[in-house]
Order: sequence, then structure tokens, then C-alpha cells
Amino acid sequence: MSATPYQQLEAEWRRLHAFRGALSLLRWDAAVMMPRGSADVRGEQVAALETEHHALLTAPKITRLLDRAQANAAGLEDWQLANLREMRRQRDHAIATPVMLISRLARATARAESHWMEARRQNNYALFAPHLEEVVLLVRDKAALLGQALNLPPYDALVDEYSPGITTADIDAIFRSLSRKLPTMTREVIAAQADQEQPPLSGRFAAGKQRALVVEVMKAIGFPFDRGRLDESEHPFTEGVSGDIRITTRFDAADPFTGLLGALHETGHAMYDLGMPQAWRDQPVGRDRGMALEESQSLLLEMIVGRSRAFVKYLQPLLVRHFVVSGPEWELEAIYKRLNRVTRGLIRVDADEMSYPLHVLQRYDIERQLLSGQLAVRDLQQVWDVGMEQRFGARPAGVTDGCLQDIHWALGSFGYFPSYVLGAVIAAQLWESLRAQVEGLDGQLARGEFGGLFDWLREHVHGFGAKLPVKELVKQATGHALGANALLRYLESKYLERKA
Amino acid sequence: MSATPYQQLEAEWRRLHAFRGALSLLRWDAAVMMPRGSADVRGEQVAALETEHHALLTAPKITRLLDRAQANAAGLEDWQLANLREMRRQRDHAIATPVMLISRLARATARAESHWMEARRQNNYALFAPHLEEVVLLVRDKAALLGQALNLPPYDALVDEYSPGITTADIDAIFRSLSRKLPTMTREVIAAQADQEQPPLSGRFAAGKQRALVVEVMKAIGFPFDRGRLDESEHPFTEGVSGDIRITTRFDAADPFTGLLGALHETGHAMYDLGMPQAWRDQPVGRDRGMALEESQSLLLEMIVGRSRAFVKYLQPLLVRHFVVSGPEWELEAIYKRLNRVTRGLIRVDADEMSYPLHVLQRYDIERQLLSGQLAVRDLQQVWDVGMEQRFGARPAGVTDGCLQDIHWALGSFGYFPSYVLGAVIAAQLWESLRAQVEGLDGQLARGEFGGLFDWLREHVHGFGAKLPVKELVKQATGHALGANALLRYLESKYLERKA
Repeated sequence: MSATPYQQLEAEWRRLHAFRGALSLLRWDAAVMMPRGSADVRGEQVAALETEHHALLTAPKITRLLDRAQANAAGLEDWQLANLREMRRQRDHAIATPVMLISRLARATARAESHWMEARRQNNYALFAPHLEEVVLLVRDKAALLGQALNLPPYDALVDEYSPGITTADIDAIFRSLSRKLPTMTREVIAAQADQEQPPLSGRFAAGKQRALVVEVMKAIGFPFDRGRLDESEHPFTEGVSGDIRITTRFDAADPFTGLLGALHETGHAMYDLGMPQAWRDQPVGRDRGMALEESQSLLLEMIVGRSRAFVKYLQPLLVRHFVVSGPEWELEAIYKRLNRVTRGLIRVDADEMSYPLHVLQRYDIERQLLSGQLAVRDLQQVWDVGMEQRFGARPAGVTDGCLQDIHWALGSFGYFPSYVLGAVIAAQLWESLRAQVEGLDGQLARGEFGGLFDWLREHVHGFGAKLPVKELVKQATGHALGANALLRYLESKYLERKA
Repeated sequence: MSATPYQQLEAEWRRLHAFRGALSLLRWDAAVMMPRGSADVRGEQVAALETEHHALLTAPKITRLLDRAQANAAGLEDWQLANLREMRRQRDHAIATPVMLISRLARATARAESHWMEARRQNNYALFAPHLEEVVLLVRDKAALLGQALNLPPYDALVDEYSPGITTADIDAIFRSLSRKLPTMTREVIAAQADQEQPPLSGRFAAGKQRALVVEVMKAIGFPFDRGRLDESEHPFTEGVSGDIRITTRFDAADPFTGLLGALHETGHAMYDLGMPQAWRDQPVGRDRGMALEESQSLLLEMIVGRSRAFVKYLQPLLVRHFVVSGPEWELEAIYKRLNRVTRGLIRVDADEMSYPLHVLQRYDIERQLLSGQLAVRDLQQVWDVGMEQRFGARPAGVTDGCLQDIHWALGSFGYFPSYVLGAVIAAQLWESLRAQVEGLDGQLARGEFGGLFDWLREHVHGFGAKLPVKELVKQATGHALGANALLRYLESKYLERKA
């Protein structure tokens, strides 16, 4: 019997999946293994594979098969129908963004990235501005084309790429709730923590020892080292595919926690990928449901679980054993407090979970104005500094702790920042349900047992892959609509140790 | 002005080059970095990229462009004409081997490889035979198809894949010369070396120290560590492309020489790739001129230069410094003798340069008979053991030091073995010319200066890429036709320390 149109589509996507896996390995290698001088060669390889991936995805054959499969959808299972919808979605996105635009954007962002670095070195925004201008113009084109194809406003179309089904209205509502509560709450917490001294930890923590500790924790979590790797890179990330998943972290010899928390964050991403049904693994329905969901999984592990009293109870003896340390600063409560210190720093990636959303709000406001043309690229630095003063009460000293602290815009990633806050919001909602439904969760975590946590996540989140839109998945998993309340409750009860 | 057909072809091949680079990285990663359990995932990625590479190469568009470029070849430069010829050659080879045959061969060789390992473990040839049978049948098909397309006998067509322009007649003539002289010469050398005791080296040589020594030597040779890497793998190899070249070696803690010699071998390959004209780098004319030439470059460095008195003079103080050793076994002449010991072992990869050709002759005879059907696969082990007895005076104890010592046939690499001997023959010819033309070469090598050596090689070999057929290149570089005389002169003068 010859293959049905739907079966042929599955075969086509198996091939596309293999291309994406190869591309992911090229990126992993570039960040972890590649000799410094070889970026040009790697750039050509990535461009060739991406172009071909785009060509395969937009080939007339795919459109024909999609139409024929749709017409014969009667016999398909639920997940296959979802798969068909995701195939069409990928195809639509690819067709809406012509390869010429993609390659112009690739060149412009490559230039912008190198000038971003130079502008940071020289603390001179003007060196970067013309290149960002070029990127903004191209992203505007892309947003307009995607918007037309998806029948969405341009910025919403970009958000939809990262988190399907989430609109600006959803994001605005969440930010409104957070903005109403967080500033006051942050002030209260800072005041409450004012009497807690936190001297820097003395001693050096060798990378080898940190790695051994991290590997032990990752093994307890269930990371499969026979089908995955842990390496070091300048910025932690997750690449690879289920079956060969690769995370990185960065060890700081003066601080034994950043490397661990970075690894927990990436392990959260990895466990999400690994939790998809095996049979869907090379199909669109077997992919993550976008960046908001991805961040919910990484933040849940890094921020909520990894900084909980229960986890610290598990961690404390490991720290003592691996680093051979003792003293009051290594007692459970001291470590817990160190990991949950709230400050009002100007750097997003160093922010605590309470001030983090305000950092994203700053970027969300600005990137929408840049994209609509309401804000000129040349005025970015000034608007940034004013915004920080209003939100955090201080102006950055330069561009490095100011408007050039993130690389996202240089890379053309507009519409991405909200994912971080959406992720935090979803993580808090999932955590509330987890605590209600998994009996003895705290005790399990304190013993380094993560089975209960991940069984629940697989059953309610991972196992659905891309089958449901984000909001539907959250509603089904938690019984509540996507919203900021759970996060606010979590923050209030944790940091002010009172019920909301 | 729009691009000419020839320019369009160059653009197509830039893309194919990027694909080949990506594939090479996937292979490098599989051998050096990949988690053990991920071979299935990697297999799918490699298959997808290879299939696409084949499709791009055999697309009707390429044929049209080749014809149009040929018709307008008047304005093309010499190297561009050669490039056009190499493009056509690649296309012809690809068209002659349908993708269905390639993928059947890929599956058959994957099965054969795992049964090769199992048969070695159990010392049972019968476990491997049926899988080799399948591979032989498919290779026979491939050889017939290639032979038809290239108008060559089947086995010659396979050899032509590896070393364009070399025929069975060339190989037979070389083996005849070698077979006439080598057995007697080997007996003489073994007798002459009989009184030289060689106790094993005492002590352990840590991989880190061996690596530091090897890196120092590779830097002196000119290996670009900003665009290349040295790693460890079970079997040494070279992957990557000019611009991101990656070699591996294997360190043996009991022996400080195998890791170094392995690295020298691979550095020879790497320097060949790096010596191509920069402007040709992503074009067919900018590739190596096949495996015989490749092996000539690796063997020249590993066997001739790396075991010469001049090189040992440079190496000896490095050994003393890196390993902090002393004693009679670390004196120059002792090291030289250790590196140039002739034995009659049964293992090809451990063979000295004098017995090496006989190992290849054994395989050359057998693989031609297997391919023609004159020898049945089931009789391989017996024929192997008889052949070894005749050639080396001893029978293997089992399959591991017998007919399953090499992986080549399991992988379908028939017609490859002669490259090793052709490489040794060419290396000796080049060495003769080098010594005649590069003044003070020995002194340079003794001081760790490799500029004179590689300037000459770039001018006479590397710089031609794939512009000339092998035999023409050798004639032009050395003034002599391809033949065994230089190798015999070299061996006689070196091992019997007399002029031939």
C-alpha cells in the first residue's frame, strides 16, 4: 500500500527535523567547540542549511500534500490533526517570510551583533544605532508580512512566532497586574531584608568541583547523560534534539551558585524537550509550545524549585561534600536567604524574580515603540535611561548596564522579551497546582527526588507537545486562565512570608 | 550584470561545499563529542543531509548550467576550466550512483559494522560473513554502474573515485616492483637490527603532557589553532574544512610516540587542505586530488619526516622537557632506532614502512577477487590466513589480528587500500625532490623549522588542488613518472644505510 498524503507529510517533516537537528548542532559547536577564527565558515554552513530548510518547507509539494491530507482528515487521530495544523502553521510562517528577507536579516543582524560588541567596548551607543536602524526596518517588514498572513497586528505576529495564541492584550493585562503590585511589594521586601547581612563567600570554587556537583544534581533530576551533554559557554543555553540534548552553563570560581542555577535553568528546557511523547519526536506536534512555555519550564526549575527551602535542604549537604566547606554561611537558612535576596539592580539577567518583570516591561514598551516608529532608534538610549530612572530609581552608568545590556535587538529578536514574564507567570501557576496535587512534594525535593515533580509536568505539560495553544494548555493544566495572580501570590507568600 | 552560467555554478558549489562542511562536522562530533546513545539521531541527520546533497548535485539545473558553461568556456581561466571539469566529474559520479543504492548501502554497511564488532568480540567470522555478503553485492552494483558511466572496468571505477586517473595497471606495476624487492630487504633489515635491544619504556606518559608536546610540534609545523582543533578519538582522523580543520589522535599512557605520530599523520592531511589556494576553497578544484595524494601528505609527515634523524634531533629535547625523562633510552640514536624498528607483525596499522606494502597487497588481491566473484565471501578467512602465511610466515591467531582487523570492507570501502601504498610511493618521490631542491632541509627540520618543507609542498602539490590528474601532478612535481623506485631507494638507503 502506498503512503497516504498525511504519511508522506510525516516523512517530509522527519527530514526537516533532521535538518533542524543538524543546524542545532552547528550552533552548539559554534558556541562551545569551534575555533574562534572559524565564524565565517560556520556562517556559510548555517545559511546553506537554513536556506534549504526554508526551500523544503515552502515547496509546492508540501502545499499539495497539506491540501490532500486535509481533505482526507477523517481517519486521523487527534494528535495527527494537531500535527497537520502545526505543519500548516510552519509552512504559513515560512511562506510569509521570503528567503530573501531572511538572508538580508541574517546579514544585518551579523553586522549589528559585531557593532553591538564594539559599542559596548567603547561605551558609545552611536556606533550601534545605524545598524540597529537597519535591523528594525527589516523586522518591521517581517512583522508586516507575518501580520498580513496571520491576520494579526505586526507586533502580535512577532509574539505569535514565539508563543502561539498569545496577544498583546494578554501581555498588557498581565503587566498591568504586575505593575500595580510589584513596586510596593519590592520596597517592602527590600526593607524587610535590610537587616540581613550577606558577606561574599570566601574561597575559590574550582570549575571541576562545581561541575561534579551540577552533574550529581542533573542526574538526580533525570537528565540522560547517555543521550546528552553538559558543557561550558559564555552564556548558558540548550541546543540539540530529544535523543541528543546539550546544555551549557558558566562557572564562576568566586560563586558556586550561578553555574548551578544556570544549569538548572537549561535542565528545565531539556526536560521539557525530553518529556514529549517519543512517537511525536520528529514531528511538529512533538515540539515545545513556544518560548513562554519553554521559559516556564526553565524558570520553574531555576527560580521556584531551585531557590525553595526544600531544594536547599537537598543541596546543602552536597555543597558541604563537594566543596568541603563549613561555617554559618553554609547553613541551610543562610543559603536560602542568599539565593532569595531582592535588589533593585539595573541588569536584567542578574535580577531577582521580583524585579525581573519590570526589566521586561521596560523592554516591551520600548520595542513596540521602535517597531511602530513612535520611537526613533537614535533616541533609544535617552528613553531607556529615563525609563530606568522611573522604574528603578537610578540611571545606568553607561550602555553596558544600560540599553546595550541585552543582545536580543541586535539579533532581530523583537517580541521575544515578553516570553520571560509569561514564563514566570505560567511557572507560578503550575507550581500552585503542583503543590496542591503532588502529595509530599516538599519532602521529595528535600530528599533530591524529582520523580513526582516531573511525572506531573509530563502528564500536564510536556506530554502535550504543541498539541494545544498556550492559553488552553495552561487552563487545562492549572484550572485557571493565564494571568498574573498566581505569581503575585507566590511572591507575596514567599518573600513576605504571609498569605496573599 | 547577471551571473554567467559558470558563475552560477560556482554559487551552487559554494552551497554544496557548505553542506559538505556541515556533514563533516556531524561526523567529527559523532566520533569526538556525541553521547554514546545518540547514534540513531545522528544517523538520521547525516542521511538527510547526504540525500539533499545528492539531490542538489544531480538536479537538472546543474546539468543545464554545465552544458551552457561548457559552450561559453572561451573566456574562462585555466583553473576555472579545471573547476568545470571537476564539477562535471562530481555530477557524473553522483548520477551514476542512484540515491536508492546509496541509502541501501548506508543501511547495509551500518549493519555490517555492528556485526563486524560482534564477530571480533566472539572471534567468529561466520557472524560477519552474511552482512559482508550483502555489502559486496551492493558495492558490485555500484562498481558496475560507475564503470559504465566512466567507461572503466568495475574495480578501476572504484579506485578512480579515490584517486582519479589511477588504474589497476598502475597499481599492479608498483606492486610488482615492491614484491620483487621488499621480502629480501625486510629479511636483511631484520637481521641487521637483531642485535638492537629495545626494552619497553618505563613510566607513564600523562595524556595532558603528551597533548602539550603534540600541540608544540603542530604549532611549529604551522597548524592554525585559531582555525582548527586537536582532540582525542579511538581512531585518529581529520575532518572539517579549510577554515575550520579538526584532527584527532589517540594517546597511549605507556607510549609517548603513537599519539604524536598519529597527530603528525593527521596534521599532514590538514596541511594539505590548508595549502589550497584560498580563492578555490569552496570549489571542486580546491579539493584534495584524492586519497593517494592525501596519504602521500600524511605519510610524508608521519613516516618519512617524523622518523628521520633530523626530526628526532628536534624532538629529543622536547621529550626530555615535557616528560622530564633521562637515560640511555632517551638519547637521540635510541629514539631514532625505536621509531624505525622493522618487524613482521600481522597488523597493518602497526606495521613499519617496509612491511606495510605487503599488508596492502594482501587486501588488494582479496578485494578484487571478492568483487569479481572469484572468491566467495564465506571463504575469506581461509584465503586470508593462507595469504598471511605466504607473505609473513605466520597465521593469525584469530579474526582480530586476521581478516577482521580492518573496518574498510564492512564500510563498503573497496578500492581504497591501494591508496595507502600509492601514498607511500608518492611520498618517497616527493621526499627525493625535496631533499634535492630545498637547501639545508635537514638542518631546518632539526631546528623545528618546517617552512622550507611546506613552501615546497605548497608550490608543487597543495597549490594545485584538484587541477591535475594524480599522475600528471606527480610527474610535474618530481620530474619522474609515478613508480616504486623512489620508495625502494629510500627504504634501502635508510634501513640498510647504503645507497641503492
